[in-house]
Amino acid sequence: MYDQNRILVDSVKRLIRRGATSHLKKIVNKTHGADLSVVFRSLSLSHQKLVFGMMDDVEQKGVLFNELDEDSFVEFVEDLDLDLLVKVLENMSADDVAGLVDRLPEEKASAVLEKMQREGSEEVEDLLTYEDDTAGRIMVPDFVAVHQDVTAREAVASLQKEYIDVEMPFYLYAVDETNRLVGVSSLRQLVVVPPDKPLRSFMTTDVFSVSTDMDQEEVAKIVARYDILAVPVVDENNRLVGIITVDDVIDIFRREATEDILKMAGVGEEFVETKSVVKSTRIRLPWLFASCLGGIFAFYIIGHFEQSLSQLTYLAAFIPVIMGMGGNIGTQSSTIVVRGLATGRISSRDLWSVVFKELAVGFILGLVYGALIGSVAQMRFSLWALAAAVGLAVVSSMSIAALVGSLVPMVLSRIEVDPAVASGPFVTTAIDVISVFFYFKIATTMLGI
Amino acid sequence: MYDQNRILVDSVKRLIRRGATSHLKKIVNKTHGADLSVVFRSLSLSHQKLVFGMMDDVEQKGVLFNELDEDSFVEFVEDLDLDLLVKVLENMSADDVAGLVDRLPEEKASAVLEKMQREGSEEVEDLLTYEDDTAGRIMVPDFVAVHQDVTAREAVASLQKEYIDVEMPFYLYAVDETNRLVGVSSLRQLVVVPPDKPLRSFMTTDVFSVSTDMDQEEVAKIVARYDILAVPVVDENNRLVGIITVDDVIDIFRREATEDILKMAGVGEEFVETKSVVKSTRIRLPWLFASCLGGIFAFYIIGHFEQSLSQLTYLAAFIPVIMGMGGNIGTQSSTIVVRGLATGRISSRDLWSVVFKELAVGFILGLVYGALIGSVAQMRFSLWALAAAVGLAVVSSMSIAALVGSLVPMVLSRIEVDPAVASGPFVTTAIDVISVFFYFKIATTMLGI
Repeated sequence: MYDQNRILVDSVKRLIRRGATSHLKKIVNKTHGADLSVVFRSLSLSHQKLVFGMMDDVEQKGVLFNELDEDSFVEFVEDLDLDLLVKVLENMSADDVAGLVDRLPEEKASAVLEKMQREGSEEVEDLLTYEDDTAGRIMVPDFVAVHQDVTAREAVASLQKEYIDVEMPFYLYAVDETNRLVGVSSLRQLVVVPPDKPLRSFMTTDVFSVSTDMDQEEVAKIVARYDILAVPVVDENNRLVGIITVDDVIDIFRREATEDILKMAGVGEEFVETKSVVKSTRIRLPWLFASCLGGIFAFYIIGHFEQSLSQLTYLAAFIPVIMGMGGNIGTQSSTIVVRGLATGRISSRDLWSVVFKELAVGFILGLVYGALIGSVAQMRFSLWALAAAVGLAVVSSMSIAALVGSLVPMVLSRIEVDPAVASGPFVTTAIDVISVFFYFKIATTMLGI
Repeated sequence: MYDQNRILVDSVKRLIRRGATSHLKKIVNKTHGADLSVVFRSLSLSHQKLVFGMMDDVEQKGVLFNELDEDSFVEFVEDLDLDLLVKVLENMSADDVAGLVDRLPEEKASAVLEKMQREGSEEVEDLLTYEDDTAGRIMVPDFVAVHQDVTAREAVASLQKEYIDVEMPFYLYAVDETNRLVGVSSLRQLVVVPPDKPLRSFMTTDVFSVSTDMDQEEVAKIVARYDILAVPVVDENNRLVGIITVDDVIDIFRREATEDILKMAGVGEEFVETKSVVKSTRIRLPWLFASCLGGIFAFYIIGHFEQSLSQLTYLAAFIPVIMGMGGNIGTQSSTIVVRGLATGRISSRDLWSVVFKELAVGFILGLVYGALIGSVAQMRFSLWALAAAVGLAVVSSMSIAALVGSLVPMVLSRIEVDPAVASGPFVTTAIDVISVFFYFKIATTMLGI
């Protein structure tokens, strides 16, 4: 797929260079908006505008807007004609418009909402009243709901008339007089039952639904777990206000996975690769500060043992292997716990059993590698006390690392703080400092220096 | 959601303890199979069997099987009555059965296929002929396809009769005489056009399709990118053989994200938390070996500089901060590149621009932190040459780390090796070793020792 994109990017660039307008126009209008967003990444702003001007289909423009990186979108529409922008937005679904409008500077955002057709703009403004990353914010009002007393035949008829514009009519929701969600029927059921049967007689009353303020990640988990195509969103009175469809769930999972991965590596939440060197540097700078502080701390710890170190210089030579083993097993532990929590394989309620298991694994692996590294020390220096001290330091470093690496994210998750941040430079650095301290303490005690 | 699960787990356990069979049975049959799989995780094998025996609905049993962890499923069915197992499988979709049968020991797998109803078993065996993780392996034969000359009215009629069993009839595919895919129509289009129009006159001929041997991750990207609900799978002659639906795509993304994260942390590909301590230790052991070897290598490097170290003991005190800064920025770089490649934000074709940018970021951040750490050295020892050496070592360590951390995954991706493994202990360890070497080389040169 990416090879095809590359070919597309190359031809668009070539045609722009050659000024082959009519040929370019043909290609642009044959290409899917999502693919054009990839092309846009490699074009200058003026060339982006050239290509955009050639697009005939307003819906394709909407797809393109949706797929552009956050920064690129804001930059692109900065001096775009307001009427043109509004026309594109009016042809997009309300949840997508809300997502885009939210990125704009406040003044521009309200100008856009002002200009949008009455109805469309109200929908968008409604969505914008919900908190970021909640079900209310990402739902669409695009669903099929009829009264529970309606017959199967009448329901099918209203599907074909009233609801012809609903893009993905996966389910038919049943509501009561006050618009409260009381049941659901699949379209298949609707065709199979005798046409005169009222909906209430065959609908499923046990409906999965989510509230408007539920976190989008929770919503995504429910949709994935029960393999449903859309989940209805209800307000505090159980009134049906929107649905969230499976295609949005895919985006949520991908975004959340990326966020978690970036947080674990200590590079913020947003993807920085597409940003400039300066911006990227600025985002990554603070995360490294933890590591720097920890390193300086370790420096003072070692300084504290300088006297012993001058007696046995080669003690220093084991610092990297002890830090490395601790760091790596700590990363293993925290990654397993963070991902386990994210996918639901681990529950934060099982704190002690998870942490104890990690500690056990860390201890066993510590014994294995402690013996190995201790043997290397013995081979090199033929000094049993040193070999034993190094071995013991590896055991303690790896056990502590597994303990800290699993405990910190488990505790964070318990107190409802995102555990992904724990796996970043903070835990690694803490493990480094503790490992170095234990190593020198053990070595100086055992060697009597 | 997880709190609810916890309540469920607790009540099931309590009812088992009390032997409250009829109450337990009621709860079990009211609970979704996906939720029961969570309960199963906390039950002993004999209690799992007790609960399973109470389940009335064979389809619910299928959902449960699907959601069980790989090991738990194999263990659970080990001495399960073959007839019972087959009955459950016969009520599941072919792709899910293929996934489960593939986990069974060979002998059991063939016994199951033997016993399954002729037709069902053939479908499963067909899927099993495709490679793991390809489109062919995960597709379902559950689609609606009619000849392109059929009218809209006839198409609707066959949807209601012939294809009433198709679970998710998102699209209607049009084929020619030889069953080759020639077009697609949405169900909505079908109801809007005049009923006498033949399919070929209004269908979309520009169909997204994938080949049976395409990697499932690529398939998932296509479905996500174009926001489609199902993608048709064709054989080498462009004949329609199956579809892959959006709900499978969610599973693919989640699994691939987990795999990538685990690989980056050096804990294999499979989720180990639910495995026993011994198994978990065995899986994690080899990944730490790289780190151990690297550490021993660093040990010999430092040993090589022992002479200088004995003259200036405090050189050792800077080892942790230099290794830590290099390690952390290296992790940042490789994580950004690996995730960028996975999500398509970075193309492996852009090797040099990506690597150069990372190098620039590493160099700038190196200057910042080099100055900072150098100042600390100066404050502590008032020795300009040492401060300069430490600062320079930080710059070189961070620049090299950013270079190696981005270059290795980019190159691996170019030669079509999974870049996620590069971000694990291998790159970190390489960076550690190089950093330590450069540090001592720079320090001894500048200090003239």
